[in-house]
Amino acid sequence: MASRLLLALDETDPQRAFSVAEAAAPYLAGIKVNWPLLMHGGLEMVGRLADFTSVICDLKVADIPNTARLIAEAAYGAGAAGIIAHAFPGAGSLQAIRNVAPERDLYAVITMSHPGGGEFFDIPGLVAVAREGGATGVVAPATRPEDIAAVRTAVGDLTIISPGVGAQGGDPRAAVAAGADLIIVGRAIYQADDPGSAARDFARALGD
Amino acid sequence: MASRLLLALDETDPQRAFSVAEAAAPYLAGIKVNWPLLMHGGLEMVGRLADFTSVICDLKVADIPNTARLIAEAAYGAGAAGIIAHAFPGAGSLQAIRNVAPERDLYAVITMSHPGGGEFFDIPGLVAVAREGGATGVVAPATRPEDIAAVRTAVGDLTIISPGVGAQGGDPRAAVAAGADLIIVGRAIYQADDPGSAARDFARALGD
Repeated sequence: MASRLLLALDETDPQRAFSVAEAAAPYLAGIKVNWPLLMHGGLEMVGRLADFTSVICDLKVADIPNTARLIAEAAYGAGAAGIIAHAFPGAGSLQAIRNVAPERDLYAVITMSHPGGGEFFDIPGLVAVAREGGATGVVAPATRPEDIAAVRTAVGDLTIISPGVGAQGGDPRAAVAAGADLIIVGRAIYQADDPGSAARDFARALGD
Repeated sequence: MASRLLLALDETDPQRAFSVAEAAAPYLAGIKVNWPLLMHGGLEMVGRLADFTSVICDLKVADIPNTARLIAEAAYGAGAAGIIAHAFPGAGSLQAIRNVAPERDLYAVITMSHPGGGEFFDIPGLVAVAREGGATGVVAPATRPEDIAAVRTAVGDLTIISPGVGAQGGDPRAAVAAGADLIIVGRAIYQADDPGSAARDFARALGD
């Protein structure tokens, strides 16, 4: 079966990022990159990593629609298969991203995985924003499977991707059982002595 | 008196950005840059613009504390005098930024300036997060002076910076009257035929 595993490539050293990506790619549904890697390696990192597998730019976009559009033009233009944006600023900002590349993915953050990250997140309200904004998927944390279950009930068949597994303590199997489609693992793979083996083991555990 | 004017340098062309910055700098309290310019021109844009005036990186950071820290290390390391981050992910993410450079500025977004941007923003709750997170200032929109007044009541003497003036329709004098310290103007300056004159006129109008 297809891998349910996304690698959060939260490295800041571009060469290290490439070597991890190359080793792990055969076992992945995709790679998620965030701002620190792009700040150190430049936007061209996206296209170079896309040679290995699909790249989701986890930019947590949370700006006005015009700025969100400009960020999306740059990220999709560099080769991103998907962008992660917050639902919090409203549907207009999501729509501005969506309109840049209607055939690619847009994931809206519904709640976050860190302690205190859920305080201001109104799950039904933000799921409604994600739908109105044309998101193809949503982000909900594996550290709170009850949030995933609530999101699954609200989003219907949209893809749910779940961070917080491994170093942050989330249980990947519980997240899948609660309704997550893709599980995001970071440090437990990219800091492993053998990132390829670590990725293979996570992918197999998720594929049972 | 000191200028109350911040230029939102929302250009994406680095050369154009430099020429606008040079013309407007004598009338500014600082320049605010956002992701699209940094995506096109690289992080080194920050240091080059800092030769003209203080640079605030409007990154709308809205991520987990570890990622927020890495973003802050890169931005302050490039020469930013301040960073703009969202309050809604919680105080831990703001503290992570603050700890990188306790002597520089950190502005927390309390509400936003675009239509629909205020739906999920709980002003008293987010002001409490900003204070707990160690913010030196907050962001509240000139398009809603009533929001500025509510924020002023809640934040005490923290600096309030207000976008949404000019092309977005906010009245700068009304924003100052409501309690804003610094007014952010973008298109009305950087798209002007003579950005220097436009900046001078805005600065004078604010300084009366």
